[in-house]
Amino acid sequence: MARSTQTVDELAERVAAGDRRALARAISLVENDDPRGWELVRALFPHTGRAHTVGLTGPPGAGKSTLIGRLVEHARAQSKSVGVLSVDPSSPFTQGAVLGDRIRLSEHFLDPGVFIRSMANRGALGGLAEAALQAVLLMDASGREEIFIETVGVGQAEVDIVDHADTVVLVLIPGSGDSIQALKAGVMEIPDVICVNKADHPLTETMVREIRGVLALGPQGGWRVPIVRTEAARGEGIDELAAKIAEHRDYLGAVGELAERRRRNLVSEVLTIASARLRKRLEGALRDDPELARLLDEVAARRLDPSSAAERLLAVAASAAVPN
Amino acid sequence: MARSTQTVDELAERVAAGDRRALARAISLVENDDPRGWELVRALFPHTGRAHTVGLTGPPGAGKSTLIGRLVEHARAQSKSVGVLSVDPSSPFTQGAVLGDRIRLSEHFLDPGVFIRSMANRGALGGLAEAALQAVLLMDASGREEIFIETVGVGQAEVDIVDHADTVVLVLIPGSGDSIQALKAGVMEIPDVICVNKADHPLTETMVREIRGVLALGPQGGWRVPIVRTEAARGEGIDELAAKIAEHRDYLGAVGELAERRRRNLVSEVLTIASARLRKRLEGALRDDPELARLLDEVAARRLDPSSAAERLLAVAASAAVPN
Repeated sequence: MARSTQTVDELAERVAAGDRRALARAISLVENDDPRGWELVRALFPHTGRAHTVGLTGPPGAGKSTLIGRLVEHARAQSKSVGVLSVDPSSPFTQGAVLGDRIRLSEHFLDPGVFIRSMANRGALGGLAEAALQAVLLMDASGREEIFIETVGVGQAEVDIVDHADTVVLVLIPGSGDSIQALKAGVMEIPDVICVNKADHPLTETMVREIRGVLALGPQGGWRVPIVRTEAARGEGIDELAAKIAEHRDYLGAVGELAERRRRNLVSEVLTIASARLRKRLEGALRDDPELARLLDEVAARRLDPSSAAERLLAVAASAAVPN
Repeated sequence: MARSTQTVDELAERVAAGDRRALARAISLVENDDPRGWELVRALFPHTGRAHTVGLTGPPGAGKSTLIGRLVEHARAQSKSVGVLSVDPSSPFTQGAVLGDRIRLSEHFLDPGVFIRSMANRGALGGLAEAALQAVLLMDASGREEIFIETVGVGQAEVDIVDHADTVVLVLIPGSGDSIQALKAGVMEIPDVICVNKADHPLTETMVREIRGVLALGPQGGWRVPIVRTEAARGEGIDELAAKIAEHRDYLGAVGELAERRRRNLVSEVLTIASARLRKRLEGALRDDPELARLLDEVAARRLDPSSAAERLLAVAASAAVPN
């Protein structure tokens, strides 16, 4: 195929022009850790920073994908071009949607104004975060105005892809007791917007009251976290949710926090990428070096302690590292 | 004070003899990243591997600490010596227990057969996992027969201190809908034992049925994950929980899985320690090197992409790394 002979510059130009196929190919290169993928991001990085990135997180089954489908419809009704990145292994975007979802989401797949991609390599979380963040940059460079990122989270979020978004929406449902407890205990960070989905459930108001109670304990002043009730499956509450997301973005811009948040996110992105690469080198060293494999046998036999083994591993990995 | 002049060898000897103060001091050294701490672990590592380590995880508010208090009572009634390590920032062990809990837990603080320690440096999770795993080794070397590790978890567990235990107990309560969803979606790993605490709640049987449904979807054969109902506050169900934990340990031993699981855990411990140290070096390099700080300004201005910045950071950190 002709496109495999495309130069990185040609591909970058087509991505910047908004070409969907070029964007898909660029993301695949990044996902496969192909050096051309990184070159592309390098070339396109100056074109980034224009999109509004919105992260939706929450427990599996809260309806994040359906909600994103509705938010996409809403953005399309305003003729905004949209990108969707799902890094939730349990998402219908990833697994192939079922029934009604399949129909609704596949409409979007056919709309040239919507670009949908899922990444859910379980077990390779370091590399996943790294690739996901680059994919968002590529979507941004290709002129997508709104980018929705779907991640699964039930409290802790070490990987925190979602934290790199301008606006973080936590999606809960009546019955999300564990998430409420995690918020209350400070184990989970307070998001920018809270959405209580499946709000036709009789326990919705109890849940909203509990959330209010948790928010009242937090710092006051600044942005007031809104609680929006939705029924994504029936399209209810979507206008309000979209309005609150837009309001948050406007707020960040007005108080000058947007630039600061993005700077912080980019710094943490640099660290995430560097750590992921280091970890990959360590795992490679462990796999390829028979002497290191013997080291692990020594640890298992309790003759060599884990910390000393780690130092030996670091020494080998450092000598193997060729800065490029 | 005389003890500050103690040599590492003297301290190691006292830890191995079961001296509580020596153990406390050894853990502090590890927690403070003092080189003597690591020397101690090196010296004592051959004495480890005798304790049965039990990890209890679950959402905040599920009653893990109270449950551990009861399991400690149970072990003490059999004259077993016990260690407790809490790495849950929302735990009463960490925050100072309240009311009834305080009284019950403080009894244990006075019992020389019980050693309790909490570590909950939020924000330093890499370092925390590293120190926690070493603390468990030190408790093990000091002759603690049962070690309970308390971690907070609501689905994802990247840090996975609890995964280093021989037996993992997931503690849920009626209302733990998010955890059930996370189990169902495969986002949370199936534990060895599931405990439904606060089982006097009217929705307990609904929760037990939901858990059964999730377990039925998983692989059959091998260890059958038991579901135990407890009311930790009133001491109910504790005998059964302790019996199931002991049964799991016996099962691992009988089928030869214990050695394999421990080997796998030690290998992952080596990687955890190595990665944490690398990350620390990177953060140090970013903090101390004005040229790297300027690099980040370039990234924030979108003139240098995050991946290229990460490579520059890695090159600097590699040249700064002195293998020891």
